[in-house]
Order: sequence, then C-alpha cells, then structure tokens
Amino acid sequence: MKIDAVDLFYLSMPEVTDAADGSQDALLVRVAAGGHIGWGECEAAPLPSIAAFVCPKSHGVCRPVSDSVLGQRLDGPDDIARIAALVGYNSMDLLQAPHMLSGIEMALWDLLGRRLSAPAWALLGYSASHGKRPYASLLFGDTPQETLERARAARRDGFAAVKFGWGPIGRGTVAADADQIMAAREGLGPDGDLMVDVGQIFGEDVEAAAARLPTLDAAGVLWLEEPFDAGALAAHAALAGRGARVRIAGGEAAHNFHMAQHLMDYGRIGFIQIDCGRIGGLGPAKRVADAAQARGITYVNHTFTSHLALSASLQPFAGLEADRICEYPAAPQQLALDITGDHIRPDAEGLIRAPEAPGLGLQVAASALRRYLVETEIRIGGQLIYRTPQL
Amino acid sequence: MKIDAVDLFYLSMPEVTDAADGSQDALLVRVAAGGHIGWGECEAAPLPSIAAFVCPKSHGVCRPVSDSVLGQRLDGPDDIARIAALVGYNSMDLLQAPHMLSGIEMALWDLLGRRLSAPAWALLGYSASHGKRPYASLLFGDTPQETLERARAARRDGFAAVKFGWGPIGRGTVAADADQIMAAREGLGPDGDLMVDVGQIFGEDVEAAAARLPTLDAAGVLWLEEPFDAGALAAHAALAGRGARVRIAGGEAAHNFHMAQHLMDYGRIGFIQIDCGRIGGLGPAKRVADAAQARGITYVNHTFTSHLALSASLQPFAGLEADRICEYPAAPQQLALDITGDHIRPDAEGLIRAPEAPGLGLQVAASALRRYLVETEIRIGGQLIYRTPQL
Repeated sequence: MKIDAVDLFYLSMPEVTDAADGSQDALLVRVAAGGHIGWGECEAAPLPSIAAFVCPKSHGVCRPVSDSVLGQRLDGPDDIARIAALVGYNSMDLLQAPHMLSGIEMALWDLLGRRLSAPAWALLGYSASHGKRPYASLLFGDTPQETLERARAARRDGFAAVKFGWGPIGRGTVAADADQIMAAREGLGPDGDLMVDVGQIFGEDVEAAAARLPTLDAAGVLWLEEPFDAGALAAHAALAGRGARVRIAGGEAAHNFHMAQHLMDYGRIGFIQIDCGRIGGLGPAKRVADAAQARGITYVNHTFTSHLALSASLQPFAGLEADRICEYPAAPQQLALDITGDHIRPDAEGLIRAPEAPGLGLQVAASALRRYLVETEIRIGGQLIYRTPQL
Repeated sequence: MKIDAVDLFYLSMPEVTDAADGSQDALLVRVAAGGHIGWGECEAAPLPSIAAFVCPKSHGVCRPVSDSVLGQRLDGPDDIARIAALVGYNSMDLLQAPHMLSGIEMALWDLLGRRLSAPAWALLGYSASHGKRPYASLLFGDTPQETLERARAARRDGFAAVKFGWGPIGRGTVAADADQIMAAREGLGPDGDLMVDVGQIFGEDVEAAAARLPTLDAAGVLWLEEPFDAGALAAHAALAGRGARVRIAGGEAAHNFHMAQHLMDYGRIGFIQIDCGRIGGLGPAKRVADAAQARGITYVNHTFTSHLALSASLQPFAGLEADRICEYPAAPQQLALDITGDHIRPDAEGLIRAPEAPGLGLQVAASALRRYLVETEIRIGGQLIYRTPQL
C-alpha cells in the first residue's frame, strides 16, 4: 500500500477551561492507504501540530511532517518504523513534530491491523492481550471533603484503584496536602490502589517533595507521579533515594524513547508512564515497555482522553501479564467519549484489555464528531495550505 | 514597564532548499514595553512557532505562549526568569513552546538592556565582554577537493578556526570520510582549529562513529559534533570513553536547561553548544554556562543565522575569558545578513565579542526586511487569530 492521504481534524468542547483536563479538545488523524482507513489521536495542542504537518520547510532537517509520510509505502510494521525514523531525521529541528507524528503513527498501526486482520498488539509481537486493572484518573477536589466524595463515587463506580492529581496539592502546606491525601484514602477504602499525581509542582525542590513522603507512606500510596520538572533527573533520583515505600512515577511528557530511558536509568523511577499520543506512537512506546521489562520497572499507560487513545496506549504493554495496572479516563469530557462509537469497558472481574479486533479495534464515530469540529484555515503567501477537511 | 505587544514576523528567502542551512528563513520577534522595543529571533520552524503563540488553549497547562507573556511586568532580569517559568508551566504540554519562547526571551533582554542602558551580558552578571575566536561554520563540499577549497577560502577570509559539517560525512565509507576530513585539514593548514559536525548521522551506532576516531585524531580535530541522536546519552558516553583525543560536542538541540545538563553529566561531552534561539533564550543558556564552568566543560554558542542571533548567543558566555572559541555564521543567506543593519566583525586580532551597546547591541533593519516577509494568516472558527503585522 501507499499512504494516499493524512487528514487532520481539530475538535473541541464549546468551552475550554484552565482545568488540567486534556480531554477538552483533540486532534484526530485519519490516514488512507490502499482503500483502508486508520485513525489516531495526538495528545497535543491541535493548531501547532497541524502547522507542523503543513508548514513550509525551513531547511533540510526542519521539514514538515507531511514530507516524510505522504506517498510512503506501508506494507508491514517495519514500514511504520522506517517512516517514524524519516520524520525523526527530516524534522529534527521542528520541535512539535513528535507530537504530530504520534497520532499519525497510531493511525498507521490501526490501518495496517485492519489490512492484515490483526490487532496492533499482535503486530507488535505479543501473543495475547492480558487484563489490566483500570484506575480512575481524577482531579483532587478543592477541599478534602470533595476529594473524599470523589473517591467514594469512584469506588461505587467499581474502581478498586484511583489516582488523584493536580488541584491544590503542593500549593499550600504539607498539612493541607496530608488532609487531601488521607481523605482520598478514606474515600477509596483501605484495600484500593491509591496514586497521587502532583504535575511537576515542586520544580526541582527535593525537600518540598520529600516533606510529603511520610503522608504518602501513611496513606499507603503506590506512586507519587511527576513531583518535578520532567527533565530534573537528579531530583527524581534524590527523592527515590529517601527511603520511602512510595515509588516515583513519570514519563508522560516523554516525546521520544530516550527521554523515558533517562527517567528510568538516571531518575530511578519505579513506574514509567507513556502517552502514545506524545512519544511518537506505539513503536517507541513498545521499545520503552521492553526497556522497562529489562530493568524491573513497571510500564503504565498515560491516558486522559478518548478510548481511541486508550486502546492505542494499551497496545504497547498488552502482552505484559505482570504489568497489570492501567490508567482509565474515568471522567472525560463528552467529546472524548464521542470519538469512538464503542468503548473499552471493565469485564466481570473489573479488568480491561486492548481489543481483540483488528488494528486499534474501535470504530471512530465520524459523523457524531462534526459538531465538535473547529474550522481552521491557514494561508501562507496568499495560498491556502490547510483547511479543515470533510469529516 | 508592562509588556504591551509581541509581534511575530515570518521571513524567508524566495527559495528554500534541502541544505542543512538554517539561515534560509527566520522568525523575528518584536516586543514593545514602556515605549521601548526589543528584538529577538527563534531558531525554529516559523509557522508552528507562530501557532504556539496564538493557538487557543487546550487545557490549564497547554496554553498558548501569549497567555504567559502579554501584560506581564518587565522591570528587571528577575521578571524575565519569572515570565519564562510561567511559560514553562502553563505551556508544559505544548511542545513547540520553548522554541517560540526563545525569541521572545531574547527580545526581553534586548528591551530591558535598552531601558537600563546596559548590555545584556552585564544584566546577566558579567563585568566584561571578552574576545572570542570565531570559527567559520561551513558545509562539507560534495567532494574532498571542494572541501579543501572551502577551507582555503575561509583561511584567506581570516578564519583561523573552521568547522565543517553535514554533507556526505557518515553516509559513505570510513575511507571516504577520511578523504574529506584530511582535505579540510589540508585547506585550513596545520595550525588552525578544525572541528567536524556530523549532524546525528550515526543514530546510536557507537561502532560506526568510533571507526572515524583515528582519522579525527590524525587530522587533529578538536571536537566531533553530534555523532548521535541528541538523546542517546549512553552512546555519547561510550564514544567519549574510547580513548581518542578528539572530544565530543553537542547540545544545539537542547530546548531546556536539563537537556544540556544531561549531555554534560551522563553523555560525558567536552563541549556544550547552546543555541539561544532554541533553549528558551539567554537565561537558561547562562545557567548552562555556569554549570559547564563548574564541570570543566567548555561552553560554545551554536549560531548559524543572523548577527542578532549571534549577539544573543554570545551574551551567556561573554564574561568567560577561558571559553574562547565561538561559532560564527560565515556564509549565511542574504536574509540573515540583512536582519541587522550593523554586524559583529573580527577585530585586528581576529577576535569577536558581544557588543558593548545596550541590550543585544545591534539595530534591526526593519524596512530592509519587508521584502522577505511571508504573509501568513490563521483563522479559527472564522475568526482571524494571526495575520502578519506591520514591519
């Protein structure tokens, strides 16, 4: 097959707030090749990503992503790796390129899987898609009471694992954070998996983060996520060396394999969290999963948006039976729910798994998404270089 | 002062080729505050960078760069650091943001320096701007003979130091590369500083790079630049450990302080090369210079474009007397030369230095640049969100 077309769709809720909720808009990618269609989704700012696909080239290694994708052969997984490497080299100086590529790469696996009647995880080399324990990813409430109620509600909804993040944590006192974290534990009950995500709030301040460790251990928290700037590897390693039971998690910002590798090798994290919509798609994510296995580090997906993104993010570790915990977008915006007509739901044992169906295994509900389209138009020197295509 | 306006200008040569020549287009930044004007330049793809400034927000930490800049106070260097930190946090998930911020941050130093009648290097804490030995940054010829002639021409033009890069190196045999490198040495003469830049051609293949070490040492090459993917830290360290005299150089792709730190601490490089148009401007570059000093690593600017970018890139190490070698764009496109009305020229001893004049110390030749303007227009939902402003 030859890649005939790549279409980009900027979708958004009518109103976008300052909440740390990445499901408020989306950049959906449709790829056509050999009469087949594949879908992917970038976890990225839509307009700069579209620009990274259509922009005029600046020089030999600052070329638009489209230059390395359109017209390429797509007959097997090796072609996907080859196209990704082409983008990596030809768009070396275009910073946004990996975020744009991620949705395309995802769509290539979806398309290839449909063409070959195989789920993406099988094309990645796995022989089975194992069940994962989904954790609800929730925002801390403004008050401990609100957090407690959210945890109770998640438990009622069947989640035995919950991650609370962002909100007030790290912005006030250690005692105020303790109230929030203990409220989360109280709401979840003593036996659930509890995780805490602080969204890089401590910058590089190891002492500020370390001051929260006793509470995290007292509440039996499994991991502390993103305590620092993603690049502050020495700070991560220092915190990991403080003797707490809670382990450090990170990696969602990794936009290539190496960034994830550095967190594992130099940052001493215990959980590596990969967003397939940012790291360049399933290929580099699978490479991270392999590297994590070799190091005894647990691989976890990072997914806050649609079930298309969820399926993509499950594929790279679908076959790893021991890496059981997975992120599940428990309260996304309606847009994210509407992206697929079908959804990944927990089974009778409360487990979810990457679909057995070909490709990413879900149907994109194109017509239902038209109402979310953000009509976009870019002109360069009077020439139209991008206009929202027909969905 | 309050930041009243940030205007972005996409400039380009009439034709842009596939050469690894970053001076073929430019994204010029004009900042206005308190009746003063400052200029900066992003070393970045213009359209995705403009999009990173004007895009609608996606969520709380995927906001456009403009959100954290417009309307901010600017009274001293601390304000520049504060604004950069705001962008870092609020645009955490917008990958292109650091490339966009770089030109703005540069312009803030230029503007603040003009307001305070001080060169940027003085505001950065240096007491003097020391002379640097400029090296001509040239592309390898298609043949060794062409390379030899380019080296001779550079010597005739007064350059005692030359870096050759890109072109055929690493794409053919070890012997072919040796012919090229020895031709460069022959053309330059035995006493000149010779550097070689291979633009990440070896990916992560340590053996392929190591096979070139004997030639590099035989030719007395000072550094081998970017042998690998910028993130392949272990490969860098492995090559540095092979016992060659030539040292490894890298860092131009660093889009934050930490990436440069990782190359120094984990990649064992000997020269850290920073492009102020990518790393987020002068502030993070100065932090790298301080860190390099502490580690006995030589700081070098990375500059392939205009003299505005050259001045900006000299500021962060202007006061480091021992770090004497600096990159000088010896054969840029006319656009790059036309960006400033005045230029940084070698003195009688062949040395250049960051200007003594306030800010970045150069005058931007706005009216001469109008012929390079690439008229750009972006509409979202029928609303015009960017149109090339008046230059």
